[in-house]
Parts: sequence; structure tokens; C-alpha cells
Amino acid sequence: MNIIKKIFKKSRSQEDGIFFNAIEKILGFPPTDLDCYRKAFTHRSSNKLSLDGNPINYERLEFLGDAMLSAVIAAHLFNKAPNGDEGYLTKMRSKIVSREHLNELGKDYKLIQFIESKVPVQHFGENIHGNIFESLIGAIYLDKGFTYCESFIQKKVIIPYVDISRLEGKVISYKSLVIEWCQKEKKTFHYDIFEDNAIDGQRLFGVKLSIDGKVIAKARATSKKKAEEKASQRAYFAFQEKMDKK
Amino acid sequence: MNIIKKIFKKSRSQEDGIFFNAIEKILGFPPTDLDCYRKAFTHRSSNKLSLDGNPINYERLEFLGDAMLSAVIAAHLFNKAPNGDEGYLTKMRSKIVSREHLNELGKDYKLIQFIESKVPVQHFGENIHGNIFESLIGAIYLDKGFTYCESFIQKKVIIPYVDISRLEGKVISYKSLVIEWCQKEKKTFHYDIFEDNAIDGQRLFGVKLSIDGKVIAKARATSKKKAEEKASQRAYFAFQEKMDKK
Repeated sequence: MNIIKKIFKKSRSQEDGIFFNAIEKILGFPPTDLDCYRKAFTHRSSNKLSLDGNPINYERLEFLGDAMLSAVIAAHLFNKAPNGDEGYLTKMRSKIVSREHLNELGKDYKLIQFIESKVPVQHFGENIHGNIFESLIGAIYLDKGFTYCESFIQKKVIIPYVDISRLEGKVISYKSLVIEWCQKEKKTFHYDIFEDNAIDGQRLFGVKLSIDGKVIAKARATSKKKAEEKASQRAYFAFQEKMDKK
Repeated sequence: MNIIKKIFKKSRSQEDGIFFNAIEKILGFPPTDLDCYRKAFTHRSSNKLSLDGNPINYERLEFLGDAMLSAVIAAHLFNKAPNGDEGYLTKMRSKIVSREHLNELGKDYKLIQFIESKVPVQHFGENIHGNIFESLIGAIYLDKGFTYCESFIQKKVIIPYVDISRLEGKVISYKSLVIEWCQKEKKTFHYDIFEDNAIDGQRLFGVKLSIDGKVIAKARATSKKKAEEKASQRAYFAFQEKMDKK
């Protein structure tokens, strides 16, 4: 349900408090100018205007966020793929910032719950998820500057989602990597699948991956197979980080 | 003449010193890792390889610089054009980072003098100028980080070249603005035109604009009219800054 509607009858300061906490949880740091983030989730249908008559909606922030995301991903790829030429870097970046991938990110962080709009959530197309993910990045840049923006993208996009081998098509299935690893390490594993519908009524599947009885990773996707693969990828990266620290 | 060739017989440290000074002059700050800037001017024809066998040339830095330039220009337009919607911002940015404009910037800063290549300078097309301007921005990001990169773009691209009114087609001629201003302020003015060929043999025209006998702005371009317009624009902005300070 829409968070703005839920707090309809509460005072502005209570409302601010709830929004502040929810945004802080996603950002990983406290926002300074809450209005930037409100704007990042305001759809043009709300017909809001600033005092000087300019429309208030997320579209300009989406432009800004898109530019920042492209720059941060470019720098990441530049450093992580020293063998890749300009063409390779361009291709890899397009895969990472593809509409499909951004929509997935927006959905995973459940950003749609913050949307302020006169159009019912069900009427939006898929792209709303990616659009407000970009506008959120724009808001972070505006509120906190490039360094925060870069570190948010690092934590929320690059670490959990950007895997150059997968993008290059070298890794076919993370599930098989996880199973192989468990067998080698003599560990038990279990994929627990459940239905978990999205706010907009879309049918989704959730997966909890447990290893030795402990939940290691969770994921949601539009099919059981995709959700298993996503959870496996997250588990794989969690283990990789662990192994890197050893 | 090619600076690298000129210093061919000098020792590495003398050569470094000359290159360091020339680059510092363009950057406006001392470089830290000179190798970044060498790479920014190394053409693929030089067939250089790193110790681990990767080609050393400016193409990867061009990719990085292009991304940083786009991000900085996006942020600038976002702030300077609060009335502009996403479509307007996108259009304005394309004008600023157009191939033609970047080539002009690269030529104005005479970056071609630094090129290291096995192909004679005359054989390069027009785009080499813009390409190495972008790779220079990439090198600044790599050497000094985003803040330096942003401030370089501010000083070398935005202040002297980015005029939203002109991009929107609102200002037709800066020459007429300057003439009008001189007449109003009862000042004499003179455009001194001379031929000034480029390193690559291209025919160029130079213009010195004097007001009350003092040279106020200089510019070079492929036609007399263009050079006059460019010098007028620079004079106009120099005056604007002066007026803003009052």
C-alpha cells in the first residue's frame, strides 16, 4: 500500500518522520534535504507546482540520476576490466544500466511504495520502477553530492548485482555453482519457494536459500527459476566476500 | 610541432618536466600521476603495450572522460535551468557535448601538440581533437577524482563556452551585442584579423578584439566571421563576470 496514503491523517512532522526512516533504511545514511527525495517519487500526474510555477515531479531528477549512474558505472568498469577496450566498456555498461536491469533494481528496493501519483499504481508500466530508481540516485546527488552517490551505487548496484563474468555470459548458472560448492564442502542446502505478490498485483515468487539450516540469501522474481538463480547469485557473492576476507 | 618529438633527445626527466609544465598550464593545477596524461595523448597507432600485454592508448580514457563530462554537464544544466524539463535538459546537453563542440574545445586548448602517434598529425580526421579532449577529462578523473574533474569542466568548458541563451538560439550574434554595448558606453572597438594556420596545416583565422585600445579577447576559427563571433562571445562573458562582481 502507498505509504503517503497510509499516513494521510497524520501530521506533517509524523509523516516526515516515517518517510525519513524509510528512506534512510534504503540509503544507508540519513537524508539531509527530505524534499529532494519526495520529489524523486512524485509522478507528473500529481500536477504539483513549485512557488514559481515549475512542475514538481521526478523527471528532471531521473535525467540527473541517469547521468550519475552512467558515470559511476563507467569508472567501475574502467578499473575492473583493464583488458577491456572502449567497445567492451560501452557494451558492458549498456547491460548494467539497461531498462530491464534498472526496473529489477527499483522493484527489489520496493520503491513504488513511495510513489505520489493520481494514477493508480497498477496503471503504470514496468519502467516506472527503473525511472524512480534513477530519480532516487539524482536526489542523492542533489542532497549529498557525488561521493555519497557513488557509494550508494557501489553498495546497492555494483556489489549485489554487477558481475562481469555473468554479463559476459561466462557464468551460466549460479545455482549450479552453489550446489557444486555445497557438495564439495559437505554442506546441506535447501531452496524454499513461496508466492509473494508485488504491490501492483503482479505474481512473484520468493526464494529463501538455506545452507546448513541457516538462511543465506533471499530473492524475488517473476518465475521460480529466476528467483532461485537470483538467490544463488547473492549467496555466491556473500561467500566470495567471506572468502576474500580470509 | 609534436612536443614528444621536440624533446626526443632529452632525458626522461627533462622530458617529464616539459610535459608536466605544459599539462599543468592547461589543467590549472599540478598533475600527480603524469602517466595518466601521457596515456590520454597516446594514439593506438603507437602500438604501445603495458607489462601485462594490454594496449596503451587514449581510447579507454575517452570512454571515462565522456561519462564524466556528461554527468557534470547534466548537473550544471539541472541547476541552471530549473524550468527545463527532461527533454530540454537532454537536448541542451547533446548540444554542449556534440562532436563539433568537443573538437572545437580540443583545438582551442591545442591538445594535438601532445599526441604520440605513428600516424602523421595531418592524417587524423577532425574528431581527434574532441577525442583527446575527452581522454584528458578521463585522465583528470583517474589522477585526481571527481571534484577536480568537475572544476576543470567548470573552468574550461562551462564558463568560457556554455551559454544557455545561445544554445537555445536566443542570442543570434555576440558581435552585435558587443558593438551595441560599446556604443552605449562610448567606447571604441577594433577587430584585428590575421591568418593563423593550425599545426595540421588547416587554414585558420585569428581575431583580437580591442576595446579602448586594450586587447580584451582572442579567438581562432575556420572563418573570419566565426572567429569574430567567438572573440565577441568571450569578451561578452568577461564583461558579464565583471558586471556580476560589481
